[in-house]
Amino acid sequence: MNSTLEQIGKQAKAAAQQLAILDTATKNKGLLIMANALTEHQDEIIHANHDDLANASNMPAKFTDRLMINEQRVTDMANGLRAIAKLADPTAQIDRGWISKDGLQILQKRVPLGVIGIIFEARPNVTVDATGLTFKSGNAVILRGGKEAIRTNTALAQVMRSALQRAGLPQDAVQLVEDTSHEVAQEMMKLSQYIDVLIPRGGRGLIQRVVQTASVPVIETGAGNCHVYVDRDADLQMATDIVVNAKVQRPSVCNAAEKLLIHRNVAAKYLPIIAKALQDHGVQLRGDQDACALVPGMIPATDEDWDTEYNDLIMAVKVVDSLDDAINHINEHSTQHSEAIITNDIARGHEFQQRIDSACVYVNASTRFTDGGMFGFGAEIGISTQKLHARGPMGLAQLTTIKYEITGNGQVRK
Amino acid sequence: MNSTLEQIGKQAKAAAQQLAILDTATKNKGLLIMANALTEHQDEIIHANHDDLANASNMPAKFTDRLMINEQRVTDMANGLRAIAKLADPTAQIDRGWISKDGLQILQKRVPLGVIGIIFEARPNVTVDATGLTFKSGNAVILRGGKEAIRTNTALAQVMRSALQRAGLPQDAVQLVEDTSHEVAQEMMKLSQYIDVLIPRGGRGLIQRVVQTASVPVIETGAGNCHVYVDRDADLQMATDIVVNAKVQRPSVCNAAEKLLIHRNVAAKYLPIIAKALQDHGVQLRGDQDACALVPGMIPATDEDWDTEYNDLIMAVKVVDSLDDAINHINEHSTQHSEAIITNDIARGHEFQQRIDSACVYVNASTRFTDGGMFGFGAEIGISTQKLHARGPMGLAQLTTIKYEITGNGQVRK
Repeated sequence: MNSTLEQIGKQAKAAAQQLAILDTATKNKGLLIMANALTEHQDEIIHANHDDLANASNMPAKFTDRLMINEQRVTDMANGLRAIAKLADPTAQIDRGWISKDGLQILQKRVPLGVIGIIFEARPNVTVDATGLTFKSGNAVILRGGKEAIRTNTALAQVMRSALQRAGLPQDAVQLVEDTSHEVAQEMMKLSQYIDVLIPRGGRGLIQRVVQTASVPVIETGAGNCHVYVDRDADLQMATDIVVNAKVQRPSVCNAAEKLLIHRNVAAKYLPIIAKALQDHGVQLRGDQDACALVPGMIPATDEDWDTEYNDLIMAVKVVDSLDDAINHINEHSTQHSEAIITNDIARGHEFQQRIDSACVYVNASTRFTDGGMFGFGAEIGISTQKLHARGPMGLAQLTTIKYEITGNGQVRK
Repeated sequence: MNSTLEQIGKQAKAAAQQLAILDTATKNKGLLIMANALTEHQDEIIHANHDDLANASNMPAKFTDRLMINEQRVTDMANGLRAIAKLADPTAQIDRGWISKDGLQILQKRVPLGVIGIIFEARPNVTVDATGLTFKSGNAVILRGGKEAIRTNTALAQVMRSALQRAGLPQDAVQLVEDTSHEVAQEMMKLSQYIDVLIPRGGRGLIQRVVQTASVPVIETGAGNCHVYVDRDADLQMATDIVVNAKVQRPSVCNAAEKLLIHRNVAAKYLPIIAKALQDHGVQLRGDQDACALVPGMIPATDEDWDTEYNDLIMAVKVVDSLDDAINHINEHSTQHSEAIITNDIARGHEFQQRIDSACVYVNASTRFTDGGMFGFGAEIGISTQKLHARGPMGLAQLTTIKYEITGNGQVRK
């Protein structure tokens, strides 16, 4: 095993044991100290970022925009930590307590997961966001970001570690893997001796690589092939508002809609209207045979389209014969993130919610609301699209597990 | 992909969609019908088991005992299903509901995981137990048992499937993978398109193979290197009762104690006493240098001993200098299953509970209580030793996930 990585693992585990018993006030103090340190050291952070940007001069603008750090972005990151300090501490909670038939007092407590590994791409803000959320929930974090952001990430992690150390808090609560090689990332995915959970953050390729490779338990996030279904009894103006919002308000994110299903009864009337509205926003439409017949010039969709998350101004459109058809199509092709039905028939809306097997199922609202902030969770580390442990927006509570503390007076098992 | 396995996956997914919307009474009826069918068909089940036993004639008695089915064991399995019918249905529960700042009504419901894969060895009772628990919680199950029990498992699954079909319930709620080859098991571990969660049940080798190979999320169960620590202020009679119970009452199971730590202040007085008590029960003791010095004839423990789960009448003994030493040793070597402290100093007991990073941490009670039945959960599918999703005894609730049903009146995201 890579000796540096093993050392990082050991240090993280030791830090996690210290963090697990810190009280909420001390953790909040740590968050504020890290926030202030980011502001104080913004010049060196921005300087390190300039070096990363200089090396990335051949990359597309979309990429360098995500990589870039300026004063405003440092301020945003610092304020993010301050906001996390204001959230409730999930580990301060006792889930329940009872006395067993043998007279054991059983307390079910909420405790940190321990050591969380975050594997991410070239968004340096993840370094700070993930640190804030893991620290507040009492976890140590091991961060492994993309090589394009390594100088920026190193500067950010170093500033936060020094701040913790100066405050007498365990600096190994935050560690960055500075070797950005593929081999070390692979080893990190198998470091189950030291890492309790891995959360990959980034594109589909990265996430699938982690899911396929890791033996450490993984929380899969952010795959969103989301559907909006316009039912036969929909309010069509509402449908247009929701479909346009779900598709165009921020097309690059996982809760944006990628597919539009329309009930046959309203397709002839409605499809030309919604097609125009979407095209007016620059959306390229790809249709099944029926949709193409109703909208001249629509590109025929291929089989692959129904399973594709575009993250772009593209939407595939399908005419369905029934609510049943819509539900079956979605359950077959969706990534189980977020789906919406637009209908005035509440019984049909209810059936859609019951039968669709996705994390968030909407009646008469945009899929764009699937978000920890919008749900009132205060912050999120990602949107889980698996069913194990966490599903949908993941806030601080999803970074914890349980522990049973059992107190007896000499009980033995018969 | 193996076409039979793919077919099984598709059928399971379809059955899971039907099961998810069955009400509790219908599921209970299904459980009782399966229980009665097992009794009615006990002769053919026992006959199939005879064939398995004939093929296993070269195996050790411990193995064939687990494999063997007689009338009593069929009755026990049937009664297990009847007992599950009496438990509360976790999917009948709404966790909470609230109105978001945008006026969305958000309902957090408890829903089945979907399709659960169980990979197990040669205990045919797992076929029935796992079916009962997954069915009651609204999940479809894909069972893959060891080749030594294939005839028995096939008979059991067929009896339960026919019973479901006759009752108009989806028979594909229960499917057995009849090809017991290694290749098909490997494929099943990667069948994330159809299987939501894998729960391996069996020895350490099987579980580690599944954890290392699977891309489907896994719940790791049943690894138990459990410790009992006798503190300086312990009631020594209570300590003896608990240590002996934890070690010898059923040494083959995961909640049996494997290690004994003793505070130096009481070691000279107590170690000879507890050593004799354990030896009187046929326990072989292996000690560190200090323990060996206090008990003539104790075998010296190797480094490997501290990490070994014996599942047998063997116990390793270590003298520690302090509570701190005990905690550090346990956190380094334990499988994070169950640990106990015996102490009259409740503050030290509390510190032990806080700092030990295991699922169940006991003060003054035997580790043998880590069990769904003992905890009052009614039944268990295993004891999770990971932190993700489920930790400790897993009952019906741990076979569910959540779903957000969100109802609006046209909300779009600003």
